[in-house]
Amino acid sequence: MEKVTASIITIGDELLIGQTIDTNSAWMAQQLNGMGVWVQRRVAVGDTKAAILQALDEESAAADIILITGGLGPTDDDITKPALLEYFGGTMVQHAPTLQYLMQRFESRGLPVLQRNIDQALVPDSCTVLMNNHGLAPGMWFEKNGKVFVSMPGVPHEMKGIMTDHVLPRIQEQFHTRAVIHQTLLTSGLGESFVAERLLAFEAQLPPNIKLAYLPSYGLLKLRLTALGDDKVSTAAALKLQFQQMQSLLADIAVYDEDIPMGAVLGRYLQAKGKTVGTAESCTGGYIAHSITAVAGSSAYYNGSVVTYSNAMKVKLLGVKDDTLAAHGAVSEATVREMAAGALKVLNTDYVMAVSGIMGPDGGTPEKPVGTVWIAAGSADNIVTVKHRLMYDRERNIQMTAIYAMNELRKLL
Amino acid sequence: MEKVTASIITIGDELLIGQTIDTNSAWMAQQLNGMGVWVQRRVAVGDTKAAILQALDEESAAADIILITGGLGPTDDDITKPALLEYFGGTMVQHAPTLQYLMQRFESRGLPVLQRNIDQALVPDSCTVLMNNHGLAPGMWFEKNGKVFVSMPGVPHEMKGIMTDHVLPRIQEQFHTRAVIHQTLLTSGLGESFVAERLLAFEAQLPPNIKLAYLPSYGLLKLRLTALGDDKVSTAAALKLQFQQMQSLLADIAVYDEDIPMGAVLGRYLQAKGKTVGTAESCTGGYIAHSITAVAGSSAYYNGSVVTYSNAMKVKLLGVKDDTLAAHGAVSEATVREMAAGALKVLNTDYVMAVSGIMGPDGGTPEKPVGTVWIAAGSADNIVTVKHRLMYDRERNIQMTAIYAMNELRKLL
Repeated sequence: MEKVTASIITIGDELLIGQTIDTNSAWMAQQLNGMGVWVQRRVAVGDTKAAILQALDEESAAADIILITGGLGPTDDDITKPALLEYFGGTMVQHAPTLQYLMQRFESRGLPVLQRNIDQALVPDSCTVLMNNHGLAPGMWFEKNGKVFVSMPGVPHEMKGIMTDHVLPRIQEQFHTRAVIHQTLLTSGLGESFVAERLLAFEAQLPPNIKLAYLPSYGLLKLRLTALGDDKVSTAAALKLQFQQMQSLLADIAVYDEDIPMGAVLGRYLQAKGKTVGTAESCTGGYIAHSITAVAGSSAYYNGSVVTYSNAMKVKLLGVKDDTLAAHGAVSEATVREMAAGALKVLNTDYVMAVSGIMGPDGGTPEKPVGTVWIAAGSADNIVTVKHRLMYDRERNIQMTAIYAMNELRKLL
Repeated sequence: MEKVTASIITIGDELLIGQTIDTNSAWMAQQLNGMGVWVQRRVAVGDTKAAILQALDEESAAADIILITGGLGPTDDDITKPALLEYFGGTMVQHAPTLQYLMQRFESRGLPVLQRNIDQALVPDSCTVLMNNHGLAPGMWFEKNGKVFVSMPGVPHEMKGIMTDHVLPRIQEQFHTRAVIHQTLLTSGLGESFVAERLLAFEAQLPPNIKLAYLPSYGLLKLRLTALGDDKVSTAAALKLQFQQMQSLLADIAVYDEDIPMGAVLGRYLQAKGKTVGTAESCTGGYIAHSITAVAGSSAYYNGSVVTYSNAMKVKLLGVKDDTLAAHGAVSEATVREMAAGALKVLNTDYVMAVSGIMGPDGGTPEKPVGTVWIAAGSADNIVTVKHRLMYDRERNIQMTAIYAMNELRKLL
C-alpha cells in the first residue's frame, strides 16, 4: 500500500500578523493521522487570490489530499470562494439546502436576512457540497488531476463538524491507507539528554518502521513511539512490545502512558482510588482548579476550591495564621502547609494541593526572586512540600506550577 | 520603499501529527509585523532533510527573510543542523561561548555533561552565531543570494529570547521597512454580517492603504484596521481618524479599543475606578479567576474567589439556601443570585461575578440542555442576571461563559 499524504492550507491575514493562533491544523492532523493519512506540510497564506492559487498548486504537487480552511465568511475580506472558482472552473450556483438552513436560522432568531448572507449559499458547480450543520458556510469537495481538495470554514466547531460528518468518512472510503499508530509516555524529572542517554541501546534496536521522538513540554518530557505498517493489528502489537520496554527503562520518571493533560491524569488516579481533591491557590489564581474541571466528569472527584490571592483571604478563608505570614511571608513552606491544612477542612476533601509563589514579571525580592513557588500536596495524614524556581514568563510559570503541583499529588496516589 | 517580506518555517513531526499547537509563529508574526515586515507565508514541515531543503528553497524564492524554528535539540530526531550545513555549506565548528555557557550550566546544577550536549555547541562556520541566553541550542544567522535565514530552537522562551536579543535589532538595522500599523476594536452583541452591513459606507470610503478585517472570536467580534504607509507618524494619524469614525458607528457594541484579553479589559476598568472584584464559579471551575489573574498586577483589584462545583460547597461556602437549590436547581437565576450575594460578603469585594451552568458533553436535561448557563454580575446595590445557551464543546463553553460574565460586569463599570 502507498502512503497517503495530505497538506493543510490555512487562509487568513489574521494568521500572518499573529492575531490568531491556529488550533485547527493540530486537530485536523490528529484526525488524519489516526486513520493513516500522513500530513506532510501545513501552510498558512494571506487573503489574496495569488497566494491561495500558488498554495493550491504547490501543495497538490506532492500531497494526495489538500484540506483548506478559512476565508468563507460573509465579508469582503473573505476571498477563498472566488479563488476556488478560478482554480477549479465552473459557475456559481445556489445550494438550495444551505439556503434553506440559512433562512430558517435567521427566521428562528428573528433576524433579517441580508444579501451577503444569501450569497453564502453560493457554491461553484464544480464541487460536491458538504453540508455545514453548525454554521452558514458549506464545505466544498473538489477533485482535480486525481487529487482531492476540501474547503471548509475556519471557525473551529464548524470545521470539526464538516470533517466528522463528511470529510473523514469520504477519505476512508476513497483511499486505502497504511496504519500509523502512536503511543506516548509522559515523564517528569529527568532532562531530555539524560533520557536520550538512557534510551541509547533501546533506540538502536528499534525496527525501521518504529520511530522515537522527544517532545519537551514545560514540566514534562513526552516520548512518542510511532509505528507504520500495512496491518493495523500487527503494527499495534509490535509497537506495544517496544513501548513496554521503554516504559520499564523509565519506570522511575514515568507519569502516564497516554498523551492526556495533567488534569486528566490526576483525575484518572483519583477516580481509580475513589478519592476527592480540592485546591487552595494563590499565585495560580484558579488555574489548577480549571485544569481539573476542564475534564468532563470531574465532579465525581472534585467539590471546589478557594483562590486566596490576598493575605487577608488566606487568613479569612483558610485560617492561615497572621503570625505565619508575618514571620515567613506568603511564599513560604509554612504558609502553603497552613493553606493545605485549612483547605482540607473547608473543602472537605481527601486530598489537596496548595500553592503560593511569585509569577512575575514583578514582585520578586533578592531572597524570593520572581519564579519562586512553594507547593504543598497530600492528605490529612501526609502533606509533602516542595519548592521550585521557575524561569519563564508569567503565563508559563502559572502553567508549570499547576503541572508540578498535580504531579506532586499524583506521586502520592 | 519596498515592502519587506518574511516566511516562517516550523520544523517538527509533532506539528504534523497534531501533538503540538504552534504558538511560536503567531508571536513571531506579531513582532515582525510591528516593525513593518509582512509575513506572507507560514509553513510547517516534518523532521526530514528533503522537506527542510525544499522549504528553504521555496520560501526564499519569494521572501526576504526566512525564520526557522525547531529541530535543534540534542536527540537523534533533531536534524535541522545537518540540513542547514548542506544548504549553506561550510564545516561544523565548536562555538566557544556556547560551550562555556553549557558547561557552566551543567556544573551549577551538578549534572554530568554528555557528548550529545557538547555537540549542541557545534555550528556551521557559514553562520553568525546568535547567543541563546535561555538554553543550550544557539541561534544561527545565514545569508545567501541576498536573503536572510535565521534558525532558532522551537522552545518558546528560547526562541523569544534570541528574537528579542538579536534577530529583531539586526533586521531593523539591515532592512528599510515600511510602516504597518494596526488598531483593533473589540465588539460584542452583533453578528459579523450585521456589523458589515452597518459599516458598508465606511468601508467604501476607506483609502486604498487602509484595510478592514473581521475576526470573529467566540463571544467577541474583532474589527481590525491596518494601514500601510511610508511614514510612521502620518500613517498612524490617518489610521486614527478612520478608527474613531468606526468606533462612533459601533458605539453601542464596542467593548474596548485594543486587542487585549477580556480579563485585561476588565482589569483596566476596575483599576480606573479603584474597585475590587471576586468570583463565585461553578461550571467555569476557576477559569474566570484565572482570566483575571493571568494579568500582571491584578492583585491591585482582585482578592480571591470561591469555586463551588458541588451543591454542598455552594451552601457551605456561599450560603446558598438548600431550599433554593431544591426548588430551582443549581443552574438557575435564583442560585446565581445567592452565589453572587454570598461571594460579595465572603470575598469582601465591590463587584462580583457568579456563574452556574452545564458545560457538557453530558449532564443536560430537556428543560436545561447542555450549554445552559446563568450569569450574575454586579455589586451589593445592583446585580444583573443573564441566561445564555451555548452550542460548543466543553472547552469553548467554559471560555465563552467567562467572556460573557466579564463583559456583563464591564457594562456596569
